[in-house]
Amino acid sequence: MKLRMNLAERSYDILLQRGELSSLGDYVNLQRKVLVISDTGVPLSYVTAVKDQCSEGYIAIVEQGEGAKSLKVYEHLLGELQRHHFTRSDLVVAVGGGVMGDLAGFVAASYLRGIDFVNCPTSTLAQIDSSIGGKVGINFQGTKNIVGAFHQPKFVLIDPDTLDTLSDRHFSAGLAEAVKAGMIAKPELFALFEEESLSKRSENLEKVLFSSLEMKKSFVEADEKEGGIRAALNFGHTIGHGIESHGKLEELYHGECVALGMLYMTENEDLKARLKKIYQKLNLPSSISYDGDAVYAATTHDKKNKGSTTKLVKVKTLGSYYFDVVETSSLRDIIGEGIS
Amino acid sequence: MKLRMNLAERSYDILLQRGELSSLGDYVNLQRKVLVISDTGVPLSYVTAVKDQCSEGYIAIVEQGEGAKSLKVYEHLLGELQRHHFTRSDLVVAVGGGVMGDLAGFVAASYLRGIDFVNCPTSTLAQIDSSIGGKVGINFQGTKNIVGAFHQPKFVLIDPDTLDTLSDRHFSAGLAEAVKAGMIAKPELFALFEEESLSKRSENLEKVLFSSLEMKKSFVEADEKEGGIRAALNFGHTIGHGIESHGKLEELYHGECVALGMLYMTENEDLKARLKKIYQKLNLPSSISYDGDAVYAATTHDKKNKGSTTKLVKVKTLGSYYFDVVETSSLRDIIGEGIS
Repeated sequence: MKLRMNLAERSYDILLQRGELSSLGDYVNLQRKVLVISDTGVPLSYVTAVKDQCSEGYIAIVEQGEGAKSLKVYEHLLGELQRHHFTRSDLVVAVGGGVMGDLAGFVAASYLRGIDFVNCPTSTLAQIDSSIGGKVGINFQGTKNIVGAFHQPKFVLIDPDTLDTLSDRHFSAGLAEAVKAGMIAKPELFALFEEESLSKRSENLEKVLFSSLEMKKSFVEADEKEGGIRAALNFGHTIGHGIESHGKLEELYHGECVALGMLYMTENEDLKARLKKIYQKLNLPSSISYDGDAVYAATTHDKKNKGSTTKLVKVKTLGSYYFDVVETSSLRDIIGEGIS
Repeated sequence: MKLRMNLAERSYDILLQRGELSSLGDYVNLQRKVLVISDTGVPLSYVTAVKDQCSEGYIAIVEQGEGAKSLKVYEHLLGELQRHHFTRSDLVVAVGGGVMGDLAGFVAASYLRGIDFVNCPTSTLAQIDSSIGGKVGINFQGTKNIVGAFHQPKFVLIDPDTLDTLSDRHFSAGLAEAVKAGMIAKPELFALFEEESLSKRSENLEKVLFSSLEMKKSFVEADEKEGGIRAALNFGHTIGHGIESHGKLEELYHGECVALGMLYMTENEDLKARLKKIYQKLNLPSSISYDGDAVYAATTHDKKNKGSTTKLVKVKTLGSYYFDVVETSSLRDIIGEGIS
């Protein structure tokens, strides 16, 4: 299955097909210097599958985890490109989850003011969401994604076979973004989650991935640099990010935090109940307790706040959303001390 | 005098007018958080002239010199923006020479994936050349501008009064870029340099600045991201950069290196003689001796080299240029051991 992201001269194809990682060279020119960036959590066989297709391939493996999105690791990777004399016509390929795409994408965005970047996401989360859209970046002094760029990839290869080696928990957490897609724009996708229990080898998995990507594509095409409606993709992310970046809750995955975050913003008790049922099937959390002041502080530190108001994305009717600009201080009440 | 840079949604105005620095707020919204970035070489009065117009202004002063274009200083400035909770709707203003524009521009380009940037260049070099065009960046492990972005300013204010405090040598060195503009595209500008001796208070100074900006505007508009003809602006820069980044010659200014660099690429002895006469008037160097191997190494380390060939910009007839793609190794002969 193929999807075309239409962004004028920054347009690119997204290919969704099992087993295609070892055929990347059929779609992308690998007859040049290529730095394949990955982390210790990704099977090395995925990395070499790409590298072996390159005429002059190099591999950089960084430590797994959000900690890789640091200035220090960024600097290390720039150094690798420079050491091997990469030029403007060379290429960076990310093989891994969202962290790898964000990190490698920012390296590619800023080396020589931008060189080609290809993304091969290997986690559900990255395949559904972060691999397309061009938002790349690193964390800085405790704030997520505060340094970065908009740098569209030249090609995205989504090979669902790579999910086989993902933990079940990571697999499920990533699906939260697909549930989000269903909530704000795709009722039929939401229905699919209600009807069946998805697994890595489900026939419908590709349908879920593709439908989520279609949703994201439409928002990114309409608003590439997130000046307007693209912000709808933040549904579940405002307080979700707060929970995620609150130090004591760091055992929660991004998708799990987004799942929780959507509950605050679903203004329809019936729909919320249906959402929680899906969470149960996916083993996603639907309750949490925390230090509300700390989560509020982490939430309002988030870059998406403009001055003293915050733009929330809310869902009242399945498949649609609306923006609600509120006083930032009112978030404290919404956050409370958790969700029961 | 006003010039409009037409780059679709990234278009902006360039205002060239004496005494306008203290009226920046007439052209740019300063009723928001503003970080004014400058260096210890810039009179503080220029910085406060801007800061005093802001509703919530902050000042960051870094050490003067090319050393400021480092990851360390970049990180420091990102920290300043974060510490003061700058949002996407806030602003970074550079007040200073090319180093400040490059540095502050890259900070603005990457903070929150890009916030507004306004440039107030205060050196001849920056007013003529580096303040417009959107190339921002820092140096890394000895290579100039290897990390950066294309990030167009929202407005550029060129106040020639700020040149009054510039050293005569810096004033002249910057004019080398105007001579370059004359060489590749503006014979009448070249003629002006032949006819008179420019000083900071020359009536014709604004004409020189404006004419140079017009030249640059046309190249940037035609090729914003330097994929094609914009590379013509590198006239004098290929070996010039090599001389500049060659450690032992670091006492030479950028413009002086460009002046030297143009001599190698002027394929017309009569024109070269006229060029040297202009250099004499401007106190720019027209001869140099060096360790040719070292300059060759520094030159070919430059990012503009693609593989084993290098695209040179040459001038045979005043006001025009042509590209000459040569084997990179052939540069060694051209560089020789200096220019007598």
